[in-house]
Amino acid sequence: MKILVLNCGSSSLKYQLIDMSNEEVLCVGLVERIGIEGSVLKQEKDGVEGKLIVEQPMKNHQDAIKLVLDAVVDSQYGGVKDIKEVEAVGHRVVHGGEKFAGSVLITDEVKAALEECIELAPLHNPANIMGIEACEAILPGVPMVGVFDTAFHQTMPKSSYLYGLPHELYTKYGVRRYGFHGTSHRYVSQRAAAMLGKNIEDCKIITCHLGNGASVAAIDGGKSVDTSMGFTPLEGLIMGTRCGDIDAAILPFLMEKEGLDAKGLSDLMNKKSGVYGMTGISSDFRDIEDAAAQNNELAQVALESYAKKVKKYIGSYAAEMNGVDAVVFTAGVGENGIGMRADIMANMDFLGMKLDEEANKVRGKERVISTEDSKVKILLIPTNEELMIARDTLELVK
Amino acid sequence: MKILVLNCGSSSLKYQLIDMSNEEVLCVGLVERIGIEGSVLKQEKDGVEGKLIVEQPMKNHQDAIKLVLDAVVDSQYGGVKDIKEVEAVGHRVVHGGEKFAGSVLITDEVKAALEECIELAPLHNPANIMGIEACEAILPGVPMVGVFDTAFHQTMPKSSYLYGLPHELYTKYGVRRYGFHGTSHRYVSQRAAAMLGKNIEDCKIITCHLGNGASVAAIDGGKSVDTSMGFTPLEGLIMGTRCGDIDAAILPFLMEKEGLDAKGLSDLMNKKSGVYGMTGISSDFRDIEDAAAQNNELAQVALESYAKKVKKYIGSYAAEMNGVDAVVFTAGVGENGIGMRADIMANMDFLGMKLDEEANKVRGKERVISTEDSKVKILLIPTNEELMIARDTLELVK
Repeated sequence: MKILVLNCGSSSLKYQLIDMSNEEVLCVGLVERIGIEGSVLKQEKDGVEGKLIVEQPMKNHQDAIKLVLDAVVDSQYGGVKDIKEVEAVGHRVVHGGEKFAGSVLITDEVKAALEECIELAPLHNPANIMGIEACEAILPGVPMVGVFDTAFHQTMPKSSYLYGLPHELYTKYGVRRYGFHGTSHRYVSQRAAAMLGKNIEDCKIITCHLGNGASVAAIDGGKSVDTSMGFTPLEGLIMGTRCGDIDAAILPFLMEKEGLDAKGLSDLMNKKSGVYGMTGISSDFRDIEDAAAQNNELAQVALESYAKKVKKYIGSYAAEMNGVDAVVFTAGVGENGIGMRADIMANMDFLGMKLDEEANKVRGKERVISTEDSKVKILLIPTNEELMIARDTLELVK
Repeated sequence: MKILVLNCGSSSLKYQLIDMSNEEVLCVGLVERIGIEGSVLKQEKDGVEGKLIVEQPMKNHQDAIKLVLDAVVDSQYGGVKDIKEVEAVGHRVVHGGEKFAGSVLITDEVKAALEECIELAPLHNPANIMGIEACEAILPGVPMVGVFDTAFHQTMPKSSYLYGLPHELYTKYGVRRYGFHGTSHRYVSQRAAAMLGKNIEDCKIITCHLGNGASVAAIDGGKSVDTSMGFTPLEGLIMGTRCGDIDAAILPFLMEKEGLDAKGLSDLMNKKSGVYGMTGISSDFRDIEDAAAQNNELAQVALESYAKKVKKYIGSYAAEMNGVDAVVFTAGVGENGIGMRADIMANMDFLGMKLDEEANKVRGKERVISTEDSKVKILLIPTNEELMIARDTLELVK
């Protein structure tokens, strides 16, 4: 079965066409500036040089998906000859609230439930729903599956997901920890168990998804028992432009000092903070590393703070699970940040973790990067959310 | 030398008179409802039955301190015969900002610096300053020392005290982690080193000050390297009425849902949250424990969440210091919460911590409560901030 995986953002759309007989990616593409001047689709195919580039106005996601369907049958860069070969579509959906603890076949009921989750993810869920509706219109009858960023974390116990806030904020508005990046944490934890040669039911794994957004998860017996992102994807680690954990009392202080309103606070914390805000340089770790190498003190402190925060989450989850078999690094910084991994794993022998400096000199390859005598295995595992979405889709439509 | 230790709140005042020749507490008292109808002073003296109770209007701290000075020379409940025997006064001051990394003799310059710190602790520092000024007026010429809750944590490195926020918020407003309860963390860490029979320079200690307010500190070589309270005493653990760590994005969400302003948010997080808000029962742990014993689920979850949070901080600081020689419990819940200590220390053997269930059955006594074979010592140490303030005062005036 060939499955189209769609990840719709508000003005962009990422997609892959995957042949599930061998999990081969047939083609992969990206549409940008949907509904904005300069809309463009770019698609690549493994083994074929160059790129398919389609510059054409797209006023909405339906326009974009029409072009995607044309592109996937492109004679040179496409993955199939006839669009009828696409037998199912898997959609990434950011927020499933408490309604979805796993992936689901999309029905009218599911769509109604997704609408209800918009309140919890006003920036993301509407785009995901647009993608679903556009596919329904263009590919009538093709089954679709929704795969949620939050679903994997629905196994957390109350003592991990309730905040120290009045309980009525939970019952009234659903204010609780949801956690995100669930598809990635699930994928790499399953790969980790395979690399350890153990059943995942017998493993305690800490997964560090360090991308532009970043989160850590504690996975005990294959189930997420805690994670660093919370009610929104703001909480937890220091990120590219997001502040992560702060003293929430800073907000009322800033409201009075700077006259910020809800949107102003939200923008400050989500878009102007993180390593970008700490340094004034960039949200890209490579730029921060370059600046640090040139003795920029703010850049050095930002990297130290970032590493310390990850280190502390690893320690806290090791305590929470009373043990850990493997720590996994994945996503942009996790897969490519050789120096960052070394900083995080420096002086962690009290927790039984010893990084192999030589083995660590690698980017984006699945590999054990701890020493032979490290009690806890340290693993580098490139994430693959698209494959996970395709697998869930296959499982539900076959 | 006999030293009067004063801890002034906005409408209350706690005091002790201590003879520093043998560190004996000569008398101890509390004034409540200063400036409010029903002002009252209560004083006790070790070995003397009953209490001195003075019900008399006190319109301000100066009135209150006058009565304190009368009380400490009381023939039955007092500690000295003549007020001239009080040779120095030690004041607890909540916030010393970045200006004070240790205790100081109070001068006009110091008072000016304290005024500057009001912005950072608008609820606490004004009362502390009132206490200082009242003493100046009534005890002219008697040297006074300020001992700061924040001072001990001034040794934290930048990577512990800077948030992932725009750097200008630090340079412009001093938005950073300060940490509190410093006098308590310092006192119990010094006692811990003594109990371990080691120089504090060679110890890694995690101190859990679990009172109505609660914080954890990582103390490496006698220096605070991290702590859970932050810019204000809100951050970190779940407390009696304070929420501790939350996703800061919950605030803009609630501003829109509930129309809360800065004060409304601050009240919600500081006064209506914590175990009180989580359960709707009480901010007192004994009440929560009673309710949990009667199968109140919210009470059970609140206790689990509380314990898990402390557990996670212990793990994170063990990672940060790459080791720990002792974990210390102190303050109300830490000294008396037999069940809570057991919950926090349950299943912590991965970190080398094993609680001795029998030894743990104790309240408010200095004692080792870990098993013989526990790699990390677990200690119960009643805190004594007043003695620490008196010692600092002696050191600076002698």
